[in-house]
Amino acid sequence: MNKKVITFGEIMLRLSTPGFARFTQAESFKALYAGSEANVAASLSHFGIPTAHVTRFPENDLGKAATQTLKRYGVDTRYIVYGDERMGLYFLENGSMQRASRIVYDRFNSAFAHIKPGMIDWTEVLKDAAWFHWTGITPAISQGAADVCKEAIAAARKMNITISGDINYRRNLWQYGKTARDIMPALIESTNVIIAGITDMENCVGISGATFEEACKAFKQAYPSTTKISTTLRDSISSSHNRLTGLLWNGKELLQSQEYDMPNIVDRVGGGDAYMAGLIYGILTSKTDAATVEFATAASVLKHSIEGDVNLVTADEVEQLVKGENVGKLLR
Amino acid sequence: MNKKVITFGEIMLRLSTPGFARFTQAESFKALYAGSEANVAASLSHFGIPTAHVTRFPENDLGKAATQTLKRYGVDTRYIVYGDERMGLYFLENGSMQRASRIVYDRFNSAFAHIKPGMIDWTEVLKDAAWFHWTGITPAISQGAADVCKEAIAAARKMNITISGDINYRRNLWQYGKTARDIMPALIESTNVIIAGITDMENCVGISGATFEEACKAFKQAYPSTTKISTTLRDSISSSHNRLTGLLWNGKELLQSQEYDMPNIVDRVGGGDAYMAGLIYGILTSKTDAATVEFATAASVLKHSIEGDVNLVTADEVEQLVKGENVGKLLR
Amino acid sequence: MNKKVITFGEIMLRLSTPGFARFTQAESFKALYAGSEANVAASLSHFGIPTAHVTRFPENDLGKAATQTLKRYGVDTRYIVYGDERMGLYFLENGSMQRASRIVYDRFNSAFAHIKPGMIDWTEVLKDAAWFHWTGITPAISQGAADVCKEAIAAARKMNITISGDINYRRNLWQYGKTARDIMPALIESTNVIIAGITDMENCVGISGATFEEACKAFKQAYPSTTKISTTLRDSISSSHNRLTGLLWNGKELLQSQEYDMPNIVDRVGGGDAYMAGLIYGILTSKTDAATVEFATAASVLKHSIEGDVNLVTADEVEQLVKGENVGKLLR
Amino acid sequence: MNKKVITFGEIMLRLSTPGFARFTQAESFKALYAGSEANVAASLSHFGIPTAHVTRFPENDLGKAATQTLKRYGVDTRYIVYGDERMGLYFLENGSMQRASRIVYDRFNSAFAHIKPGMIDWTEVLKDAAWFHWTGITPAISQGAADVCKEAIAAARKMNITISGDINYRRNLWQYGKTARDIMPALIESTNVIIAGITDMENCVGISGATFEEACKAFKQAYPSTTKISTTLRDSISSSHNRLTGLLWNGKELLQSQEYDMPNIVDRVGGGDAYMAGLIYGILTSKTDAATVEFATAASVLKHSIEGDVNLVTADEVEQLVKGENVGKLLR
Amino acid sequence: MNKKVITFGEIMLRLSTPGFARFTQAESFKALYAGSEANVAASLSHFGIPTAHVTRFPENDLGKAATQTLKRYGVDTRYIVYGDERMGLYFLENGSMQRASRIVYDRFNSAFAHIKPGMIDWTEVLKDAAWFHWTGITPAISQGAADVCKEAIAAARKMNITISGDINYRRNLWQYGKTARDIMPALIESTNVIIAGITDMENCVGISGATFEEACKAFKQAYPSTTKISTTLRDSISSSHNRLTGLLWNGKELLQSQEYDMPNIVDRVGGGDAYMAGLIYGILTSKTDAATVEFATAASVLKHSIEGDVNLVTADEVEQLVKGENVGKLLR
Amino acid sequence: MNKKVITFGEIMLRLSTPGFARFTQAESFKALYAGSEANVAASLSHFGIPTAHVTRFPENDLGKAATQTLKRYGVDTRYIVYGDERMGLYFLENGSMQRASRIVYDRFNSAFAHIKPGMIDWTEVLKDAAWFHWTGITPAISQGAADVCKEAIAAARKMNITISGDINYRRNLWQYGKTARDIMPALIESTNVIIAGITDMENCVGISGATFEEACKAFKQAYPSTTKISTTLRDSISSSHNRLTGLLWNGKELLQSQEYDMPNIVDRVGGGDAYMAGLIYGILTSKTDAATVEFATAASVLKHSIEGDVNLVTADEVEQLVKGENVGKLLR
Repeated sequence: MNKKVITFGEIMLRLSTPGFARFTQAESFKALYAGSEANVAASLSHFGIPTAHVTRFPENDLGKAATQTLKRYGVDTRYIVYGDERMGLYFLENGSMQRASRIVYDRFNSAFAHIKPGMIDWTEVLKDAAWFHWTGITPAISQGAADVCKEAIAAARKMNITISGDINYRRNLWQYGKTARDIMPALIESTNVIIAGITDMENCVGISGATFEEACKAFKQAYPSTTKISTTLRDSISSSHNRLTGLLWNGKELLQSQEYDMPNIVDRVGGGDAYMAGLIYGILTSKTDAATVEFATAASVLKHSIEGDVNLVTADEVEQLVKGENVGKLLR
Repeated sequence: MNKKVITFGEIMLRLSTPGFARFTQAESFKALYAGSEANVAASLSHFGIPTAHVTRFPENDLGKAATQTLKRYGVDTRYIVYGDERMGLYFLENGSMQRASRIVYDRFNSAFAHIKPGMIDWTEVLKDAAWFHWTGITPAISQGAADVCKEAIAAARKMNITISGDINYRRNLWQYGKTARDIMPALIESTNVIIAGITDMENCVGISGATFEEACKAFKQAYPSTTKISTTLRDSISSSHNRLTGLLWNGKELLQSQEYDMPNIVDRVGGGDAYMAGLIYGILTSKTDAATVEFATAASVLKHSIEGDVNLVTADEVEQLVKGENVGKLLR
Repeated sequence: MNKKVITFGEIMLRLSTPGFARFTQAESFKALYAGSEANVAASLSHFGIPTAHVTRFPENDLGKAATQTLKRYGVDTRYIVYGDERMGLYFLENGSMQRASRIVYDRFNSAFAHIKPGMIDWTEVLKDAAWFHWTGITPAISQGAADVCKEAIAAARKMNITISGDINYRRNLWQYGKTARDIMPALIESTNVIIAGITDMENCVGISGATFEEACKAFKQAYPSTTKISTTLRDSISSSHNRLTGLLWNGKELLQSQEYDMPNIVDRVGGGDAYMAGLIYGILTSKTDAATVEFATAASVLKHSIEGDVNLVTADEVEQLVKGENVGKLLR
Repeated sequence: MNKKVITFGEIMLRLSTPGFARFTQAESFKALYAGSEANVAASLSHFGIPTAHVTRFPENDLGKAATQTLKRYGVDTRYIVYGDERMGLYFLENGSMQRASRIVYDRFNSAFAHIKPGMIDWTEVLKDAAWFHWTGITPAISQGAADVCKEAIAAARKMNITISGDINYRRNLWQYGKTARDIMPALIESTNVIIAGITDMENCVGISGATFEEACKAFKQAYPSTTKISTTLRDSISSSHNRLTGLLWNGKELLQSQEYDMPNIVDRVGGGDAYMAGLIYGILTSKTDAATVEFATAASVLKHSIEGDVNLVTADEVEQLVKGENVGKLLR
Repeated sequence: MNKKVITFGEIMLRLSTPGFARFTQAESFKALYAGSEANVAASLSHFGIPTAHVTRFPENDLGKAATQTLKRYGVDTRYIVYGDERMGLYFLENGSMQRASRIVYDRFNSAFAHIKPGMIDWTEVLKDAAWFHWTGITPAISQGAADVCKEAIAAARKMNITISGDINYRRNLWQYGKTARDIMPALIESTNVIIAGITDMENCVGISGATFEEACKAFKQAYPSTTKISTTLRDSISSSHNRLTGLLWNGKELLQSQEYDMPNIVDRVGGGDAYMAGLIYGILTSKTDAATVEFATAASVLKHSIEGDVNLVTADEVEQLVKGENVGKLLR
Repeated sequence: MNKKVITFGEIMLRLSTPGFARFTQAESFKALYAGSEANVAASLSHFGIPTAHVTRFPENDLGKAATQTLKRYGVDTRYIVYGDERMGLYFLENGSMQRASRIVYDRFNSAFAHIKPGMIDWTEVLKDAAWFHWTGITPAISQGAADVCKEAIAAARKMNITISGDINYRRNLWQYGKTARDIMPALIESTNVIIAGITDMENCVGISGATFEEACKAFKQAYPSTTKISTTLRDSISSSHNRLTGLLWNGKELLQSQEYDMPNIVDRVGGGDAYMAGLIYGILTSKTDAATVEFATAASVLKHSIEGDVNLVTADEVEQLVKGENVGKLLR
């Protein structure tokens, strides 16, 4: 069966301080290329799912390096377009203990922000795809990015491809004159699988609810294409210690994963993308919803043990954690 | 209002093994320049308080590098004097788990140990200062250091400057023929804000008490210039896991901060100096005593999340921890 | 009194990924030379016990580097023989949190696997020794290694030297046509001090028991030379967090050490070898069995705080942990 | 026009000492995956030529990491097969000044050595290829590798694909019972473009000549399929300083490139493979023979400025060096 | 005598690949903060000259880190202003041998590009200054930067302060709608000491000449405030090997320094700024013109031995090189 | 034949800046333990000569680490004594190009400086030795060190052991009240093989000469025990580029080695000690004087290609360089 997943969104150069150094202590930055949607593709690729990522890079050595990163993870890069402008980037200061992690974004005016409708041939891109994935970051970047996202969703809808969207409300984006509520409803309308917390729903489409389940019901009422809504509950005891649980509402019931304790976090960035990839994998491989939310949550937990944004684990490793096998072992 | 703080004491080259390496494993040492009193100045400087540090360095490249470190932190270095002899230094082996950290001092015969009365023009140094800070390490180093410390305290007293002293008893110093009890009482006599635990009081001035509060009362009786006495309670579960609470006795009542759990310590050296800086900041900015001890303790906790001796955090970050805001978050 | 300990076994080049990197992320590997039996010798050497290790290395720069490592730890290398073939090696991916650590062995056809009876003059090697130590890894490597192990045990027996064996069953060794049950009984027959868990006993000599103590009794019945059997109970909460207890059965009673909590493990490889060295040290220095199991367990705990396979701690440091002294302190 | 190049051969894990460290000084090894034929593919891929590499890897994390390396360089990995056994590897000690570089090979019994005829579907692999490349290393590894190499050459011949061979005589390979002279003639017989120095010709097919040109003529006489023979002249003044010239005999005349001085070599491993890639590129893009040998030599020179085995430069950069443009500039 | 030097211009975050890595190989970037004019200030500060640098930074952690860098070098930072927007940055790939170094600029829309007249109180800044220094990079960045530069030059002129300008024509700047020839003449008009090569003069003010001396004469005719014009002759044999000579035209004669051979360059970025600082130092300390050009050239040569943009050498070290003393020695 | 060599002298902790960093840039120091005489022993040990080094270390972790370094090199450490005081140390800033290297010594009051006659049982130490080696550094450190050196020389003389001395005049030592001319003659009187340049002879014993040969003749006249005098001619073109020639006067003629060009020096510290070790090796293995001076010079050249003070090369590697074999090769 065809299971190819297409993702679309910006990839940035992530520059993080070494160890637990503060920005003013950094004599160097670790460098890698990552973005929420591409992280999902790379993670799915490690699960054995064919993937392609669509984005726009500057036509320079940084764009070339970012492309090589995707290739290395087995993500098809043939649909990437190149142009002027710059690579978006972000600086990350790793928190520890009670001290928070900090991100300084520097992504305005990037090559991706200058993407325009017509630059991507979506019919070609989606021709053998089973799934299209987007996030709320993309329409927040620029009018062009929002338009292309809409273009892609329309094409996918027409081709009967499942569409997922991570409704990721980021207050400090949305600076091109539109608000989330202006733009997001039209995108969500055609989306089937949604990741959103209560505040995301409130911020993006003005739906609220006393509980996650109630909000989901209202959401479904407003957006009947929705088949599943999911989110994670994260308890941030400190930068080094979180607890994580997954929630999945399938229109009928609210399923909840086991809670995982994570007292020695290596890198939490990309934890949500790992969850999204797990969710897509569960649905694509016809797991039950209960199994899907367990798989997605365990995938996200494993991500926290890995440096970088991408969840470099196999589906087998995730399944073993779901079953509680090999946890903390020394596998010879 | 004038809030300038003057600190006085030795700065050493700290050479620490990388990661958790033992001394015999070290192929390299991380290098930085630090000292208890200068750490207080650097921390206050990050809180926005003008500071100057007074010390004596060897006139060589190491003395120059140490001066640059202070400049970088915004500490005024114009009163530093230079001479012969050597840079004092200490080697640090980072403990982990149950294994203790170890320090090998190599500070005898340093340029600072050869400081002599008359080398520093204290009237000039203190002319626009609001506060003078010293510690019990300085008089333990050499007769000259003890004499200059006394000289500074006398000048500060005369100029009506608040004086703080961290009565930090170190058994393996005091090798020049005098004991703490010979020297410390005269210095403490003019000091207003004291950091001392029960054993420090016992060792330095022979005052004891069943509880910290009782010892404080006896101390105040003996040294009526004292306005506040403070200390921290540290529960060392392991090298990686401590718990910390601050205590502040203000002549009337004993105030106690909330207790902080620190199960993933990055670097505990300088934790006491961060506390001292927090205390001075609280008093200088007219916080209540209750707010001051909370601020000082939270400052010290954040220090444990930072590599090196110096607490590279802003007053805002400390206030947020006191309020429990942003703890362990990913601030975008 | 003579206390020299002779150990025999393969030493490999250990290549571990930096930090918590996965194999596919590793741009470099940390390199060190280690092996179960040599780790015991090196640890004993740090306790002040004279030791020599016997092995076979390839006659190349890697063999030379491995020899230098042993010399550095004070282990006598004069009985090592050199030949053709290769250095055995293993790749280690450090796990963290719920993610397991992984070892990829690459040790077949090593210089050690080609060792043959007659290559070592055991009478010369053992002439002033008090103790001979072997492990179940050696006879699993090749017929030659098994034969030389038997040769050594026979010589030691004849010379009335105490013999210890760590019955370490490794499923993925034993590939030369013999099984553990074919080979191990003859080696165990002459061994006095045994480290073995219940499953090791089952796998190596077919002895089982409902409890460790019952298995020990059956073992002693079958192998009357046995004087002590010991093992550790390890509770692997995660790769970063284990709990450890030692058990020692002395023919009369089962002694159990205190349990240690280890929530911030630095490196768990070699933890069992550190335990073995602690056991030998306790017996050689005539500690009570209760003190011996406490010493061995504390030694193993300290190993978990040290990078690499070798327990670079002194006997004093272990004694202090047994007494709960200096735990997590900053020793100036 | 179709220009796809297929390469076939072993890829090893290269473990090199950091900086100029000797083996006994190495606390770590830099790790990368490389092999003569794959280096050619990766270099061509950077020149914009589509490539695929065929090899056999162990089915473990090292095989996975090696595959990712090829993907990153844009080399198609779909024809790689996986099996048991191990990853071949080599240890590299970087020489400097008069001190030679040293390689310790550890490649016997690798997954590639166990390749067998029938494992690769050469008709499928070569179906849209313009060029097939092999080297003399492959038939030296094992009978199976020699057989598969022969199988591939036969298939390519049948499909009228240009065949190149780097006749790279390595004395310390050829340990499976056959000599180069037993095996190489049959492979060379169908090969069109040859890289071989005088001693390679002597060792592999017993052809000698007073000069390179004379040897070429005799070679062509014996192996009439040969269209071009090429080699480089390397003057090794020291490990840090070489001079390089390329020679290309095209059946009619001997063309010689300019000589390049290289007094600050970064990494010379892979210099010959970069030359080979340059040669193939020149021929595939229909350069004159004179331009081809200049391109190949300049490509090889640039490789010496790059860490690792692979020549990470574009065709444009090579062309610029040929024209003497931008040499040593700071391109803003 | 008052010798304070004020410099004005952008400071960027420089992100350079480690060692000789290409951009696509970089797993990390070395980070430092530098800019042509600030490099001059920092170098002068190492020569013992009081300096202050004026710029505009974003009000974030990167702006704070950049400020600390200047403080560390002893450059007065009190006149720096802070605002919105971003830190300009550039990526540097270190060339080696024949391979060129490459810079990818990412400086558009920086906080400095948004500087506007009135933001800096030039009368206050220049009140105790002897010298003002600007470069041709600043007016190329934005209209605002050009306007503030003009504002500063006017103020300096009015206060009779010596003005130097490094006419550094950069083709890929000047993107805000003006050309160098539109803007530069007005700035040069009031400038006294000029660094410019023949092509800079051509590009910026349309003056050309068969020789440097002839061009200088024409320049002086057109811009009579000019007292000295200087440049360096750089012979780029390779990225690792350059030769350098300084030229100084003083209105009467052309002085030329000795030529220096530099076959093992560590870092050439900032070499021109080191030359400029040497020139200013020579004039400020009343050296002869012949001595000044020797000092400036020797200063620039030493810069090539130092990592980073800033010339961390003392005036004594430069003087020694001018005299040929201590060259290549091991000073104990 | 017995060939054991005993060396005597201080070993220091060498702390060098990474790469070409200046002291003020160093965030870390590379650490190793070295000393002129111990370097000779370690080098001889790599040549296959049995050696023991005698020194005094502080009884702390640094003394332990230094001892382990010697053990690793195969130098016998059984005669080392331990005491109070500190480890001597030195800081090294690596020069490059025209910029000189700089050493900041910090060795006063070391454990070795406090050595006293009677602490070493020289009869025991020298009992199976063929050679005793000392340098002019030792008597310059303290009266005690000078006395023990004299004690050792007297014992060696009595036991008919060949004595070598490297007359290494260091102006900034000799601070305990004696001059070289007070102390050195008595030590030289019994020494047979001398390394000394013309200025060393002048400074230490007041002998001068127009040429090295003439000075040698005068030296022999004054000190008839002398059998050979040797030195190296070093042409320091820059920190990165030296030329080296060896000279050996044997009482009859002056022999001169070939000159070596060294344009890419890795580390020149210890070059003289490598020469000394080569000289001793040549004499001990009965080479001709001409062969000895070639061997010693080639040994010294190879040292310049190795990081650290110790010449980690075999006698075979030196012989190959003498013959011009394998220079700059890639040995597979």
